Amino acid sequence: MKISLGAKTLAQPAPVWAVGAFDVNGKPNAMIAAWGGICSSDPASVYVSLRPSRHTYAGVMEHGAFTVSVCPAELAAEADYLGMVSGKKEDKFAATGLTPVTSDVVNAPYVGEFPLIIECELSDTLELGIHILCVGRIVDVKCDEDKLVDGKHPDMEKILPMIFSPGTRSYYTVGEKIGQGFSLGKKYMK
Amino acid sequence: MKISLGAKTLAQPAPVWAVGAFDVNGKPNAMIAAWGGICSSDPASVYVSLRPSRHTYAGVMEHGAFTVSVCPAELAAEADYLGMVSGKKEDKFAATGLTPVTSDVVNAPYVGEFPLIIECELSDTLELGIHILCVGRIVDVKCDEDKLVDGKHPDMEKILPMIFSPGTRSYYTVGEKIGQGFSLGKKYMK
Repeated sequence: MKISLGAKTLAQPAPVWAVGAFDVNGKPNAMIAAWGGICSSDPASVYVSLRPSRHTYAGVMEHGAFTVSVCPAELAAEADYLGMVSGKKEDKFAATGLTPVTSDVVNAPYVGEFPLIIECELSDTLELGIHILCVGRIVDVKCDEDKLVDGKHPDMEKILPMIFSPGTRSYYTVGEKIGQGFSLGKKYMK
Repeated sequence: MKISLGAKTLAQPAPVWAVGAFDVNGKPNAMIAAWGGICSSDPASVYVSLRPSRHTYAGVMEHGAFTVSVCPAELAAEADYLGMVSGKKEDKFAATGLTPVTSDVVNAPYVGEFPLIIECELSDTLELGIHILCVGRIVDVKCDEDKLVDGKHPDMEKILPMIFSPGTRSYYTVGEKIGQGFSLGKKYMK
């Protein structure tokens, strides 16, 4: 039997991404976002929803660019910290020992220790209540060489991205491979 | 060393959600979307990006409503099929044996066998190249009673939502719990 839970943000899975931006003074900063996803295939685009009060939001607007660093399970404590304090008060890179790396294609920093990076130019914004949906046109994707399949596809089994469960507010890692998309369903084709 | 992969949609993890809508003739239909996510906390909102050529897109525009049914690992073949054929030609519910259930709060169907449902009224659209980002204001969330924590939070460990890895186009399930959000990072707090 299904139970009604009300109008809440209880969809899952949600990602755990570090959104990187230079702040208005040029200092590298990163915050955690679980409200994010790919939003167009062509031009390849990704979004993160940010609150205007966030230090990162001002930086993204100032510089018109941001990065998404996919948080791996092995650096969960560092990632979680990036979502607990504000870059207004703390240098989150210094506190965690993570390394801010300036993108070579957009005016934003990413987290050097995180295995998969999406580098974006801000292309659109959409105001949705307390969040601003910020769309980034993907300029490049960078992945650690040892975490690729066939030298070109990021390997989820090696990256082991963190997964967020809204509601319980807990983090999970990736489990077993179920199978290939556009293949499992063939059993139902006429 | 990081390798440049180009401007591609290689962010991860991505969800595997069945987007439910009545078509323009009132027939229940569902398609799979991996380009989706929560996009605002208040009002609680979720988005899916759809191609205008999709049968589901016309239904969402006609009725101003859609549902998101979170695909569980145990029904991966059924879910995959929903992304392989068009509702223009096939009755995907009949083919898979899945049950279309009409929402009691919005004018759209959901997948009865899937454990977690988000029911939405279309609130905004944003054209982004070949995809239209469709924002739904969440009207209600429904979850199978036996898949709740404390009677109110969807339990990721019991729902076991499918996870999509763009690039390799493969599906994964959820693995071990890493820990609690807003807790693991305390070790870095001053």
